[in-house]
Amino acid sequence: MSFADRLAEAVQTSGSVTCVGLDPRKSQLPATLRDSVSTDSPDAWAAAYTQFCTEIIDVVAGRVACVKPQAAFFEQLGPAGMVSLGQVISYARKVGLLVITDGKRNDIGSTATAYADAYLGTDSPWGSDSLTVSPYLGRDSLEPFVEVCDARDAGIFVLVKTSNPGGGLLQDRVCDGKTIYASVAELVSELNSTRIGKSGYGPVGAVVGATYPEQLAELRSAMPGAWILIPGFGAQGGSADDVKAGFDGSGLGAVVNSSRHIIFAHSRPEYKDKFGDVKWLDAVSAATDEMNAQLRF
Amino acid sequence: MSFADRLAEAVQTSGSVTCVGLDPRKSQLPATLRDSVSTDSPDAWAAAYTQFCTEIIDVVAGRVACVKPQAAFFEQLGPAGMVSLGQVISYARKVGLLVITDGKRNDIGSTATAYADAYLGTDSPWGSDSLTVSPYLGRDSLEPFVEVCDARDAGIFVLVKTSNPGGGLLQDRVCDGKTIYASVAELVSELNSTRIGKSGYGPVGAVVGATYPEQLAELRSAMPGAWILIPGFGAQGGSADDVKAGFDGSGLGAVVNSSRHIIFAHSRPEYKDKFGDVKWLDAVSAATDEMNAQLRF
Repeated sequence: MSFADRLAEAVQTSGSVTCVGLDPRKSQLPATLRDSVSTDSPDAWAAAYTQFCTEIIDVVAGRVACVKPQAAFFEQLGPAGMVSLGQVISYARKVGLLVITDGKRNDIGSTATAYADAYLGTDSPWGSDSLTVSPYLGRDSLEPFVEVCDARDAGIFVLVKTSNPGGGLLQDRVCDGKTIYASVAELVSELNSTRIGKSGYGPVGAVVGATYPEQLAELRSAMPGAWILIPGFGAQGGSADDVKAGFDGSGLGAVVNSSRHIIFAHSRPEYKDKFGDVKWLDAVSAATDEMNAQLRF
Repeated sequence: MSFADRLAEAVQTSGSVTCVGLDPRKSQLPATLRDSVSTDSPDAWAAAYTQFCTEIIDVVAGRVACVKPQAAFFEQLGPAGMVSLGQVISYARKVGLLVITDGKRNDIGSTATAYADAYLGTDSPWGSDSLTVSPYLGRDSLEPFVEVCDARDAGIFVLVKTSNPGGGLLQDRVCDGKTIYASVAELVSELNSTRIGKSGYGPVGAVVGATYPEQLAELRSAMPGAWILIPGFGAQGGSADDVKAGFDGSGLGAVVNSSRHIIFAHSRPEYKDKFGDVKWLDAVSAATDEMNAQLRF
């Protein structure tokens, strides 16, 4: 089944449009887990990251649409971290969760193909269902990824309109009456046009931040065949009302990512006293329920 | 010593502005090396990549300004490839070659810091002198990298005007009378402005393709304090005349990358019969001399 159709099925089966961002950070791990790291070695921290992420995966499995491991935090540990990333991805898939690896990779020609080959599809070293990619290099930097998506029933999410304040510097520039993000959206639609599956969506998705609700509405209609990955919900300030416009009439077409608010829920004021570090997984569970409830339109 | 000053010194000491791109590909390795891979396992191929790259490094050490390993081809092998990447980087530094890791990483805030922490500076897991980064996310995606550069005497090369045909789709768009690549160049100059060292250059470099000589001249004067990494020479069609405009009056300010033309020189028609697969390192040596001679203005 195509990635787009699998994602539609995941949203329908779980009844959730939540994507849980797996962003392990040494300093923010629950004390119980942090203290279990005996030696300050990459291998020890990598093991803690794997345990942290797989325990979260056990809690959210069947209750959310997908998970999004952030490659950077695993890379920060060196090769040992990249082993952990692979373990986390395969564990998530084993329990039936779709995986969007957040790597924002980008290059041209055979180099882009090498990145796609590394991350996309079950048989790749980091067997993800999909990968985030950056579009600055243009169409010939996206096509090699899309070809691998075709061959492996995988997907990509192209950065279109990002959630950070500085994103506008390039993305909002208006050229010939059209913003740069709108031009990238056009490219996303073109690449999808011949690839739309049963669900009405294709393998080429887009990243559009929750912090720009008007642009989200504009981009939803500009890219009818593209799944939208919406970061910036919760910790970054995006609300449920802000993301509504990302969905189609049947509640499909978008998944909303939350990282810190769920995985580090034990540190949130409203959960700190109730759960604290010891019951950190109960905090993850409560935060997941809360987000799912907020996004049930 | 700052990265910019170290690069100036490397160009002056070696008398070369050549950057050797280390892009190992299974299918293009010399037959002698390819046949030595007994089992088709990531570990076996990673060992071959390490041998391939370190033997090239031994040949070019002291004769070129720097080397540029392409992360994608190592990532393609999975974690074993990332171990190999680390071995290649540390070997290059051990023999005194500056290392530009070509990863085109990009993200925001603490995630960008995690990438910088993974690749920049001697003590990082992949201890590179510098890293290529992609600018689509804007200023707040570059600042975290620059802060790590400040702390570790490292550098970055920001994609400004790339060598591929499709690069123009976004980069050449004209907004308010200014191209997108010119806006990125402005950002590069701003970030460098308070960071210019003895050599006259700062830690924030730029990638400008050899295939667009006019834009290279425009960007050289737009970013007087930025080292320019020029890809697209040789195999991609850029000539010595095309890259001239990248240099300042004293022959500094740019390094010119060549990958295939040097590392796979044994396959080039003009070298095939003379050296072939057995004497592939002699072909690398001859191709290095040839490129250095072409770029001695």
